[in-house]
Amino acid sequence: MKAEIITIGDEILIGQIVDTNSQWIGQQLNKIGVSVYQITSIQDDKQHILNAFKEAQERVDIVIITGGLGPTKDDITKKTIAEFFKDDKIIEYPEVVAHIKGLFKKINHPFKEIQRTQAQLPSKATLLMNNYGTAPGMWFFENNTVFVSLPGVPYEMKGLISSEVLPRIQKQFKLPFIIHKTIMTYGAGESTIAERIEDFENSLPSYIKLAYLPSFGKVRLRLSVIGAHKEILENELNNKVEAVYKLIPEIITGLDDDASLEKRIGELLKKNNKTICTAESITGGKIAANLVSVAGSSAYYKGSIVAYAAETKINMLGVLPETIKKHTVVSKEVALEMAKRAKIKLNTNFAIAVTGNAGPTTDITDKSVGVVFIALVTDNKEIVHEFNFGQPREKVINRTVSKSLEILQKEMM
Amino acid sequence: MKAEIITIGDEILIGQIVDTNSQWIGQQLNKIGVSVYQITSIQDDKQHILNAFKEAQERVDIVIITGGLGPTKDDITKKTIAEFFKDDKIIEYPEVVAHIKGLFKKINHPFKEIQRTQAQLPSKATLLMNNYGTAPGMWFFENNTVFVSLPGVPYEMKGLISSEVLPRIQKQFKLPFIIHKTIMTYGAGESTIAERIEDFENSLPSYIKLAYLPSFGKVRLRLSVIGAHKEILENELNNKVEAVYKLIPEIITGLDDDASLEKRIGELLKKNNKTICTAESITGGKIAANLVSVAGSSAYYKGSIVAYAAETKINMLGVLPETIKKHTVVSKEVALEMAKRAKIKLNTNFAIAVTGNAGPTTDITDKSVGVVFIALVTDNKEIVHEFNFGQPREKVINRTVSKSLEILQKEMM
Repeated sequence: MKAEIITIGDEILIGQIVDTNSQWIGQQLNKIGVSVYQITSIQDDKQHILNAFKEAQERVDIVIITGGLGPTKDDITKKTIAEFFKDDKIIEYPEVVAHIKGLFKKINHPFKEIQRTQAQLPSKATLLMNNYGTAPGMWFFENNTVFVSLPGVPYEMKGLISSEVLPRIQKQFKLPFIIHKTIMTYGAGESTIAERIEDFENSLPSYIKLAYLPSFGKVRLRLSVIGAHKEILENELNNKVEAVYKLIPEIITGLDDDASLEKRIGELLKKNNKTICTAESITGGKIAANLVSVAGSSAYYKGSIVAYAAETKINMLGVLPETIKKHTVVSKEVALEMAKRAKIKLNTNFAIAVTGNAGPTTDITDKSVGVVFIALVTDNKEIVHEFNFGQPREKVINRTVSKSLEILQKEMM
Repeated sequence: MKAEIITIGDEILIGQIVDTNSQWIGQQLNKIGVSVYQITSIQDDKQHILNAFKEAQERVDIVIITGGLGPTKDDITKKTIAEFFKDDKIIEYPEVVAHIKGLFKKINHPFKEIQRTQAQLPSKATLLMNNYGTAPGMWFFENNTVFVSLPGVPYEMKGLISSEVLPRIQKQFKLPFIIHKTIMTYGAGESTIAERIEDFENSLPSYIKLAYLPSFGKVRLRLSVIGAHKEILENELNNKVEAVYKLIPEIITGLDDDASLEKRIGELLKKNNKTICTAESITGGKIAANLVSVAGSSAYYKGSIVAYAAETKINMLGVLPETIKKHTVVSKEVALEMAKRAKIKLNTNFAIAVTGNAGPTTDITDKSVGVVFIALVTDNKEIVHEFNFGQPREKVINRTVSKSLEILQKEMM
């Protein structure tokens, strides 16, 4: 079963926002066995919308549309949808009016007549009630194609997909299973890995796909299969994963089982009843923010000291001024001292510390731009690594964050 | 002049990564007067690529393709491009071989024969040399359409767009000016604003577009115009902005002049020679990470204390245990004490502190999920705000971050 995601609105096209909705929808559809064949972002323009709908209908079985539903004028989606389905009746749905009035009452806002337009929808639509906002979703089924139109606000869209859209798709179609296994490697380039697993890759049956996904110093190898028998597929993929493990054992860090690194770290910490803190310079709190993004992180995450200025490293962490003077703030010694001091001050089992030079993007003359030290101190171990993450700034910071989490996870395994 | 961005690769379609490349490219094209008409993400599949190219050629003047260039097998883009341009000669470019060898020598890796395939490219391509990686970009001009193919790795793609693609597009086409002005508002909903500026909106000439962009508690109003005379357009848009200012003065926080909130805060701090720190609970360092993301932030950002656990609030910040006992950790009093203590400890002019309950997404029974306190302490002022950001967790954290930066900016203006 193939799907297309269509996002409507100039804000994506002019680069005002990133399209995170499509990523999330892609993940959810994959989980229930629907392949996303294409993602299309188009303008809030009637003819463009009609063309995109028509093309999508020829390509896929399910079309998920986000955006273009809201109370103001720039939203022409509804009328265009009605036209596309040759639905000449836009009617007012009283249950939507009641829902909007209820929402407004809750936050003590008066109901405005302009809101009523959100309850005026094509008569052929099956309404999907929106628990997190005013605009309902709409479901259409015509010529064996499902069209679903959803508001673009991320949490409203997510609520509707989870509670309404996925169950309806599962009811409507007989779906296969799609299984991905992603092997995470680091330390070797795409071409090196390709050489080492060449025979394996050539021997793969055509229904198993292998993809190389390089990013920030690591390469993920994704094996994908689609079929009707979940157990058989699982077994087969597991065998393939094992085969890869045997070929390149020393560069594999683990399986990317859909869970993020910070989530897996959280699970390991919780399971072992351990706590963690960070002492960050170059990353400015981003490692901490990643750890905290996991629900339930308060069980193991105590806090962090973001010591950006040298004086903060001294005053808040207690790094010795002599260490900084002797080795400079970007050094193995300072990283280690930051981790050790943070571990004591915050009274945790693990402490990660990072210091480095992210540099301005344009500063290509300073040789030390990109140099980063990552220290990990545990109850019985002290480790420091030196890296050169090159440039620009954004890349150096992001690689420092992901490398820190990687080192931490590896140590806990 | 219209453009389409085509991204190739299953990783976007299955939701393994977010397509940030297209956002960035959209911004850059807009700046030089090119409108992005459509963004299309497709599979790494020959027929799909050929169809997408053909459709794009009918729609637009410039097609920017990212992804599908790399050393391994899953990259069929190159051959498909050659086929599309009826180019039956794939030749090896010696300058690319030399470039790859040079890169590998720099990092002390041996050159592998498999790398040579990256130097084998369609003979009709104009090569765009890649300073940050091995795979060059390619430029084609046929039937009045420009096709540019670029690697998908973000910093390689960015380097090529800036140094090669934009200058070539500017040389190839006579481009108009596209100007956007975005007015940032907060505290009023989309429909309220629409009612208040209805007459203004109806009086807009058809070549000026107005869009409402609601997100996390604020609505941005974007006015866009396209034309040949920059000054006239600028003047006209400025007049329209002024008119909006007069209609809804009390809810406007400023103009979104392309710079992020954290960038503008940085500029204000630098200009006034002031420093800042944060004391974060609920956001886990994310406010700090935002401040640090700006190049040059070391001039005004000293550090932060991420006090997630109550004991960290006491031990590291010096919040009084009695305050927590009396008011709980999620209270006006604790937020204020966090900010005051951080300001003293880190010796800054401004301190932002946040505490709240982000909750697990599913916890809908706990009434206090979503409650957040934000305190700002300056050299002569103490402010605390209470908010209810609802749920889920992700939204509560993100709204706390953006609201904190907003409060800070407003105070500094």
